[in-house]
Amino acid sequence: MAGRTRKDFDKGPDEKGVYLAKNLTCKILQAHLVEGELVAGQEIGIKIDHTLLQDATGTMAMLEFETLGLDSVKVELAAQYVDHNILQTDFKNADDHKYLQTAAARYGIYFSPAGNGVSHQVHMERFGVPGKIILGADSHTPGAAGISMLGIGAGGLDIAMAMAGHPYYMPCPKVLGVRLTGELPDWVSAKDVILEMLRRYDVKGCVGKVVEYYGPGVRSLSATDRETIGNMGTELGATSSIFPSDDNTRAYLKAQGRAASWIPLAADEGAQYDEYTEIDLSTLQPLIACPSSPGNVVPVREVAGIKAHQVIVGSSVNSSFRDLMVVAKIVEGRHRHPETSLHVNPGSRQVLENVAAQGGLMALLMAGARIHEPGCLGCIGMGQAPGTGEVSLRTMPRNFPGRSGTKGDQVYLCSPETVAAAALKGVITDPRDLGKEMPYPRIKDPEQYLIDEGSFIAPSPQSRTTEVIRGPNIKPLPDMDELPATLEAEVVLKVKDNISTDEIMPAGNKILPLRSNIEAISEFVFSPIDPNFHRECKERGTVAVIGGENYGQGSSREHASLAPRYLGVRVKIAKSFARIHKANLCNFGILPLVFENQGDYDAIQKGSKLVLRDVKKRIAEGAVEIPVEVDGRAITTRLEVSDRQRQHLLAGGALNYVRRTC
Amino acid sequence: MAGRTRKDFDKGPDEKGVYLAKNLTCKILQAHLVEGELVAGQEIGIKIDHTLLQDATGTMAMLEFETLGLDSVKVELAAQYVDHNILQTDFKNADDHKYLQTAAARYGIYFSPAGNGVSHQVHMERFGVPGKIILGADSHTPGAAGISMLGIGAGGLDIAMAMAGHPYYMPCPKVLGVRLTGELPDWVSAKDVILEMLRRYDVKGCVGKVVEYYGPGVRSLSATDRETIGNMGTELGATSSIFPSDDNTRAYLKAQGRAASWIPLAADEGAQYDEYTEIDLSTLQPLIACPSSPGNVVPVREVAGIKAHQVIVGSSVNSSFRDLMVVAKIVEGRHRHPETSLHVNPGSRQVLENVAAQGGLMALLMAGARIHEPGCLGCIGMGQAPGTGEVSLRTMPRNFPGRSGTKGDQVYLCSPETVAAAALKGVITDPRDLGKEMPYPRIKDPEQYLIDEGSFIAPSPQSRTTEVIRGPNIKPLPDMDELPATLEAEVVLKVKDNISTDEIMPAGNKILPLRSNIEAISEFVFSPIDPNFHRECKERGTVAVIGGENYGQGSSREHASLAPRYLGVRVKIAKSFARIHKANLCNFGILPLVFENQGDYDAIQKGSKLVLRDVKKRIAEGAVEIPVEVDGRAITTRLEVSDRQRQHLLAGGALNYVRRTC
Repeated sequence: MAGRTRKDFDKGPDEKGVYLAKNLTCKILQAHLVEGELVAGQEIGIKIDHTLLQDATGTMAMLEFETLGLDSVKVELAAQYVDHNILQTDFKNADDHKYLQTAAARYGIYFSPAGNGVSHQVHMERFGVPGKIILGADSHTPGAAGISMLGIGAGGLDIAMAMAGHPYYMPCPKVLGVRLTGELPDWVSAKDVILEMLRRYDVKGCVGKVVEYYGPGVRSLSATDRETIGNMGTELGATSSIFPSDDNTRAYLKAQGRAASWIPLAADEGAQYDEYTEIDLSTLQPLIACPSSPGNVVPVREVAGIKAHQVIVGSSVNSSFRDLMVVAKIVEGRHRHPETSLHVNPGSRQVLENVAAQGGLMALLMAGARIHEPGCLGCIGMGQAPGTGEVSLRTMPRNFPGRSGTKGDQVYLCSPETVAAAALKGVITDPRDLGKEMPYPRIKDPEQYLIDEGSFIAPSPQSRTTEVIRGPNIKPLPDMDELPATLEAEVVLKVKDNISTDEIMPAGNKILPLRSNIEAISEFVFSPIDPNFHRECKERGTVAVIGGENYGQGSSREHASLAPRYLGVRVKIAKSFARIHKANLCNFGILPLVFENQGDYDAIQKGSKLVLRDVKKRIAEGAVEIPVEVDGRAITTRLEVSDRQRQHLLAGGALNYVRRTC
Repeated sequence: MAGRTRKDFDKGPDEKGVYLAKNLTCKILQAHLVEGELVAGQEIGIKIDHTLLQDATGTMAMLEFETLGLDSVKVELAAQYVDHNILQTDFKNADDHKYLQTAAARYGIYFSPAGNGVSHQVHMERFGVPGKIILGADSHTPGAAGISMLGIGAGGLDIAMAMAGHPYYMPCPKVLGVRLTGELPDWVSAKDVILEMLRRYDVKGCVGKVVEYYGPGVRSLSATDRETIGNMGTELGATSSIFPSDDNTRAYLKAQGRAASWIPLAADEGAQYDEYTEIDLSTLQPLIACPSSPGNVVPVREVAGIKAHQVIVGSSVNSSFRDLMVVAKIVEGRHRHPETSLHVNPGSRQVLENVAAQGGLMALLMAGARIHEPGCLGCIGMGQAPGTGEVSLRTMPRNFPGRSGTKGDQVYLCSPETVAAAALKGVITDPRDLGKEMPYPRIKDPEQYLIDEGSFIAPSPQSRTTEVIRGPNIKPLPDMDELPATLEAEVVLKVKDNISTDEIMPAGNKILPLRSNIEAISEFVFSPIDPNFHRECKERGTVAVIGGENYGQGSSREHASLAPRYLGVRVKIAKSFARIHKANLCNFGILPLVFENQGDYDAIQKGSKLVLRDVKKRIAEGAVEIPVEVDGRAITTRLEVSDRQRQHLLAGGALNYVRRTC
């Protein structure tokens, strides 16, 4: 898209006149549309500009890319980050990193090695471009909103397909317009904006939507503030989030030495949104998400006084220069409470370098902070597990049960300011109370960041002959058979609402290193809920899982589909599915059925025998209603998928389909 | 020992006139002698001034201390460090840390929390005093040699007893005098001195000895250089190492704001040593210990050109200001090789702060280094595991097989200079080759270190009411029965020479967190050699293990005795035992027998049935010769222990004995 101009986003109204005054989401989607129409709910195919892999999802995605048989990636820019498995507690992590580094060199992918930082932060610093679309095998890819780039999280196979030049298919989202007015008060920051959104919409209130921020309040938020809001917007269930590209965006890109990448972008005057809300930033107060859902938001004041044993600033969200510096300035010359550990996870090597250069690192160290390597760490349960019964305050985006690595964990999500206040006081504290002791340290972003690109490894013509090295834990993808004519399956598990992919396919230090070995990792499917799940599956052959609302929320990990499929799961019936997980189920040939009558949820139990008679024929014929016999009694379910997804389901998975047809 | 003067160390000759001109080791031992005589090989009891616990050995030692029923520690200074299990991959580490923090407060112990750094480095910075004796539940405690403090590693129970005010008992060591002359050439540093010692003496050449350095070459070595030599002196099998206290010691203590702790100490003019050797420092070249023994030393030149995938500076040894700064200056303005990861493990928060303050941190970051939290990390297999078949160069003290966390690992041990050269070149490189590209950066230690004591938690009268908090993984010590009249045992395992405690009771991320739960950790005893060991023990009841030479070398971990004892191991017969492990065996009631005729080693096999008839009576009567029937055939073994240890063995362990008699 060299030579791209604003005009690309200013296409006139379509023949229906619907987009006369377009919101920014529509403009960006329109400019990338290769199939379908921008009608909410209908499947669209969009051109992908950038792809993002990290190491936890990336090994499998890279294996999938390799099965497509291409010689190089077909996108403008593909990047591979190593940020999840950086503890390296045995050979598997290091082997994965080497596989990814050699495969990146071989196929023309930028490689960001362990130590460079979290994909979202780093991509925004060095690669992101306003108005482009990035598809990432990480659910927090929408952090790209920070520089007005549309970031979408997806399963690894979708990324692999995009890397191979295929469009990305998804239901066309609705657009929720969030009009921002006013300016944030002292001690209140971007995290409190997204927590306010979560207070209003909870974890599934924005499913099927892009959240577009606009209005006069936008200009008071810096690029990294917007990244925080976009990144954690994933917890709303949103497809993505977006901000205009304005002077703040330009200032950020200029400070990154990338002023040339800037273009202005905004919704048209008078643009319409499918839904609206408004936030007067000046009325916000410090908020906090209580255990164990990002949607469980209350004012910090309401939980003040609870003992905080551990606090962490950084990782996936709130790991920017400002976020670390505001904590540094608050604790400077003071010391953490002796019973509260203070952890700092810089978002990137660049952040660490800039914070160090401006004295923040020394202030943090002298205040007793533990400075960790830039990376995800505790956010994905790679270390930093709290003790039994301990309370942990984190700026991270998620606090699903057990995700921290500790069963029964008590993880709260809040702003860097709230983390700093708890570090000093030893208890959850409204950071505005610190105002009695010190002025609010308003951080100014550098006009010119210290830039350090030395550790990136760019692909080159020479690198294209690199031998791809596969350690012994890197196993080929298992074969998958196509859908049988009639499917019979026994229910091995029934779960409640809002089950996250952390519960379906846990991460953490023990399990993440198995991500490139489906047989090994499958032993941990549903282990937090039923440690015998994998054994029961193996005994029964073809099996089913019953879910509640918002089934499969959270992380984009396709292993939450691939590993169950390996265990024989061929159908899931739920009240509703989270977007990425549903797409992943189709990708790996598991039928994602929803109850027509939600009361039928109660009629199915563990041990129920399901028969989906002639299901293959029905799906091939485009049927939406799929009858299911439950212990002989008929209920109706719905298969709400695109024609393309039907083909994938019939073939037993998208890879089978693509290999057969491409 | 306030008001202590040089005179304390200048006591006249004893009645036999042997110590007329005394070496420094004798002076220090003499000043601490409470039982026995300074005759090599005879058991002596010495007063302990300082005790050191870390978290991997400390939880068990603290539990043991608690069973003694005292209200507070009875030593001048007791310190508890958290440096081993700092990744916190689940609740167990954090629970252990809280147990140790609360117990330290309760019993009057200084607490150094996670993030403060490695015990040896930190103790020298803030607490160590020339001429005192420190007993540490960590085999590298002899690093205290850096400031002329006699550091001795021992099992946790010995430390617990010392904390309770008991003397420490050991065989009086011989003293090996190492006369240093000359000065180290450019690109050669303290690590090469201890590697030269290892080249000469290998891993058991100094068993039963203190290595005392003296002569004109000493003055060219700084306090932290000497710490390196003393710390890794453990790999010689030595009881301890010692340097004089001189102007360099004074300069170091002054730079630490502790000039008042300094006294001069040296061997008397004309002092005698039991053995002698001499090293002309000016003739040394860069050396490297090849896989998988610290004694496998060759010149770097001989292995130059081997691809290095990972290099690490820091951790237990070579983690001082100088060590990190010399790497920083070598890589400054350059960048690590793209296929070689460069890791930095600062020895302490203070080191990190001082390196940061002098620009070293930024130089390291810009060169692509991964900066880890101060602590042991990869040295104890907590993270940093190399990939399959990868070569790792480390400044750490040990490279026993698998200790890195990777089976079949290829770990080399070398100086920071050699590490830096490999980081730049991607292959093992004699650092003198860098001399063609740059002058050797000779680092000057700060005249005044940035000092940060804020994170230490000192005990106080108030802290003495702290409630000791025990997480669910912290289990009480198992009960142990006394020695039976006649012992019958089946041999479940026979091993070769130089088996380390890393092979008997592995560490690493998976196993270390179980250190406070003997039942759980016992499942991993001998797991690198025979994963079925624990199962076979349980099936057989009372069992025996047969060892070769130097059995039980390496780490001081008493779990290598306690966990086997829990599994029913009651006797070990070996060609020879490492000192600390032998003491630990006595402490937990396992008979450490040596073959009178080494050929008998060949006559015993797995499955052999041993009968030690009337062994209880024999041990009680002081017999050294212990007959053993091996499948009906009689052989002779020797029990070379002190009378005190006999009492412990009869009682089934030292704790049984102490509880019965004190």
